[in-house]
Amino acid sequence: MKPLTYAVVGTGAIGGFYGAKLASAGHPVHFLLHKDFEHVRVNGLRVSSCDGDFVLPQVCAYADSRQMPQVDVVLVGLKSTNEQLLKTLLPPLLHADTLVILIQNGIGLEADVQSWFPGLALAAGLAFICSAKTEPGHIRHQCYGSINLANFSCKDPELFAAVLADFCAAGIDAHEVEYMEARWRKAVWNMPFNGMTVALTTQTDQLLSHPATRQLIYEQMMEVIGAANALGISALDETFAQKMMQMTDEMVPYSPSMRLDFDYHRPMEIHYLYTRPIAEARAVGFHMPRLHMLEQQLLFIDAHNTCRLS
Amino acid sequence: MKPLTYAVVGTGAIGGFYGAKLASAGHPVHFLLHKDFEHVRVNGLRVSSCDGDFVLPQVCAYADSRQMPQVDVVLVGLKSTNEQLLKTLLPPLLHADTLVILIQNGIGLEADVQSWFPGLALAAGLAFICSAKTEPGHIRHQCYGSINLANFSCKDPELFAAVLADFCAAGIDAHEVEYMEARWRKAVWNMPFNGMTVALTTQTDQLLSHPATRQLIYEQMMEVIGAANALGISALDETFAQKMMQMTDEMVPYSPSMRLDFDYHRPMEIHYLYTRPIAEARAVGFHMPRLHMLEQQLLFIDAHNTCRLS
Repeated sequence: MKPLTYAVVGTGAIGGFYGAKLASAGHPVHFLLHKDFEHVRVNGLRVSSCDGDFVLPQVCAYADSRQMPQVDVVLVGLKSTNEQLLKTLLPPLLHADTLVILIQNGIGLEADVQSWFPGLALAAGLAFICSAKTEPGHIRHQCYGSINLANFSCKDPELFAAVLADFCAAGIDAHEVEYMEARWRKAVWNMPFNGMTVALTTQTDQLLSHPATRQLIYEQMMEVIGAANALGISALDETFAQKMMQMTDEMVPYSPSMRLDFDYHRPMEIHYLYTRPIAEARAVGFHMPRLHMLEQQLLFIDAHNTCRLS
Repeated sequence: MKPLTYAVVGTGAIGGFYGAKLASAGHPVHFLLHKDFEHVRVNGLRVSSCDGDFVLPQVCAYADSRQMPQVDVVLVGLKSTNEQLLKTLLPPLLHADTLVILIQNGIGLEADVQSWFPGLALAAGLAFICSAKTEPGHIRHQCYGSINLANFSCKDPELFAAVLADFCAAGIDAHEVEYMEARWRKAVWNMPFNGMTVALTTQTDQLLSHPATRQLIYEQMMEVIGAANALGISALDETFAQKMMQMTDEMVPYSPSMRLDFDYHRPMEIHYLYTRPIAEARAVGFHMPRLHMLEQQLLFIDAHNTCRLS
């Protein structure tokens, strides 16, 4: 089998990190960039990582996906607020067997992209990583770094296995997981903490140190688990919520990505983090009143926080 | 019947206004003051009112309730965060037949005061007024001004009727209402708007102009009405919620009292506005998830907002 070729659409803290790891391991990786295209074209990519710093002095950088080659695997690291852009960004990169991996947060992403590209092979990438792009072409990987890959519609198990093997060979802790369970499992942490750190302008540790919000976070986790159960995912129960509480207790005070988006007056990923999972649960008769209220508060906050002209 | 004598405990925007109206009509009214005692003792009380300004150049002002006489009627205008103070403030004012009227917001106030003074005659005063004490001894009455009086445990219908007559004769639009229904009717507006203007640092008009928060406010009103129904109050239904929405649409942009408490870093009236009604509803099997979540958020906000040393 020929070495797989890769593209990264959305070379930010997440897509940029995994793409850089694969490139560093010798894979051909084509990076689509936006704001820091010129900087990366000239200076390459720099990764300051808890696992060891490295630099890619020369990268295949593009400002326009129409100039990129077709590849075997596309890693999508876009903010899901820009999901619609995939309609025009993806086609130039796709050959008949390209696998597109959405390394994004939320519920319903693969279903939407599949509806735009009915024959496309899709997978989900669930990253467990603290990483940030703090300046042009410079990714700071603070801790963790594993990724779970979940097949959504790829009919080529060999291709899927080869991608997993590439990630592992590049020094990334990667595992295959079941799609529905993995997406909802991640939502158990994401839905309470992303929105609540924004709604109360705070961080994870503060939310857990006040008894009222600690209880609320737990109740919200149980709403997500209840929704997952209603959707047929039986593996999640209250012991997982307890585990997530404990894990967060042991973390450093943390601002989830939505809090950072809020702080920088960027649009927040409300649709795929809240609106969609709440609608999917409601469709099977399960209501999430607390997370629906949080969604409503976030929509209000977003409308008053975002500079729509930027 | 001799003219009734009055005392005002908590001479603020509300207690001060109704007490001043009664004094202005010739009733003996004894005012308990705190911060502006000295100013009022020397300069009297000034009321700038949409119904006509007036001044009481000399008022019976006290800094200590132990120096006050026993009276026939006590108007309590304290913030309910100070409710416990009534245990020591009230006894000097009470004779065997004194009626105490709690002109305060919330659910459970009369039950608590009754538990501290088992034989006491109690009533609720539900004020519909925009009023503020903007500087020492100066009350600004902006609009509205009516008050509903609801008997809680007064066994003397003549006394109750005489107080109502005194209010009316003093130019106050006053009516008798049924206790439980009146308290819960007021909660339909109070519970959504007080907390939500704090949680989202906004005003009534903004909440109603975004479709997400407009829907949430309505859902929260329906939670209060559902709780009231569960408690046996059948007069409230969705038409009342619709009426409250419409009334608020027609109001000027408004900061409810809890928002003002938040802005001035004062403790918020979370207990009687949220904790108690939520507990009363839960006791009959009715859950209020949205208002309980709002309570949890407010407890967090209050803990980070209040200077406990002031």
